[in-house]
Amino acid sequence: MAKIKVRGNATKKEVILAKAAKLVRVKGFASSSMRELAEMMGVEAASLYNHIGSKAELLQTICFNVAGLFHHQLQEVVAMEGTAELKLEKLVRFHTRMMIDSYDEVFVANHEWKQMEEPFLQEFLQERKSYENILVEIVEEGIQKRELKPIHPYVAVLTILSAVRGLEFWHRQKRDLDATQLENDLVLHLLNGLIK
Amino acid sequence: MAKIKVRGNATKKEVILAKAAKLVRVKGFASSSMRELAEMMGVEAASLYNHIGSKAELLQTICFNVAGLFHHQLQEVVAMEGTAELKLEKLVRFHTRMMIDSYDEVFVANHEWKQMEEPFLQEFLQERKSYENILVEIVEEGIQKRELKPIHPYVAVLTILSAVRGLEFWHRQKRDLDATQLENDLVLHLLNGLIK
Repeated sequence: MAKIKVRGNATKKEVILAKAAKLVRVKGFASSSMRELAEMMGVEAASLYNHIGSKAELLQTICFNVAGLFHHQLQEVVAMEGTAELKLEKLVRFHTRMMIDSYDEVFVANHEWKQMEEPFLQEFLQERKSYENILVEIVEEGIQKRELKPIHPYVAVLTILSAVRGLEFWHRQKRDLDATQLENDLVLHLLNGLIK
Repeated sequence: MAKIKVRGNATKKEVILAKAAKLVRVKGFASSSMRELAEMMGVEAASLYNHIGSKAELLQTICFNVAGLFHHQLQEVVAMEGTAELKLEKLVRFHTRMMIDSYDEVFVANHEWKQMEEPFLQEFLQERKSYENILVEIVEEGIQKRELKPIHPYVAVLTILSAVRGLEFWHRQKRDLDATQLENDLVLHLLNGLIK
């Protein structure tokens, strides 16, 4: 029987999760099955169940892994010295890189989280809300310190999060534009504006 | 039998389309039916068929009405004198107002267009592509005239379109923020940036 192939330092579970994220992004969670995932990987479904309990667990793991990475980065940014501009720049760059390097996982966490069961659904929603709230606090502090324009903090946060999320469209178009330019342009546009 | 109620100058067809847009936004096109729409309006399904041929026609009409309004505004902006900044400001304001005043219709055109049948699907996609391309041209011209920063024009357009589309989230949260402030803040953020 074929074995689950791993490269470098990845564990078998990580390999399964990466393939699952791709499958779920392309087909949607409802239309994806453990059997199809196994076929995609050229292994028996039983081999998957050695590493992951169920289809629902796959989705939970993907969504919470993504949330965890964003949360970790946010904690680092909150703890660091520096202006609101510097903090937001760091976050915009991180979001952009995640959209490029972990597109399948981020897409699934953005679109398929609603398919999670309780209590995971509530927990995930709360994590998202708390992430947004901390971003709003960073903007509020920047406005108070007169580093940022007095734009409604929630509108500013929404604009930033929507813009990085919009990279999905860029992804689909496969535009000829490297990741570094994309990151720099987004930071420039969202922080310094389009007008010269 | 109950009649279709109209207010002001609206035609019966316009009333049906507005209710349909709300139904489709909330339930999705696949789960919506003419019968349910008729029930929502307190009329017999037969009354609807006097004004609209099918469920598919409802979706086409909603999507192409929205596309038509955006196209019309874009033509006006292209024809007007003024800087790229002024043109983009006018468009950001229009997108914002549409997201507030015609939320159901814009939401359906943004999310449910994929459910249209051919040849409407292709035509709709081409209209969207052409809209994006003209926006890219406005930004390119602004960069050439040194009115705008040399950000990749497609990235700038994507950022603007994603940010106005992101107002969906604002809508769901029912934030305490009036439409004029929302419009002004978005223009300020997207054109002049967040940094003071």
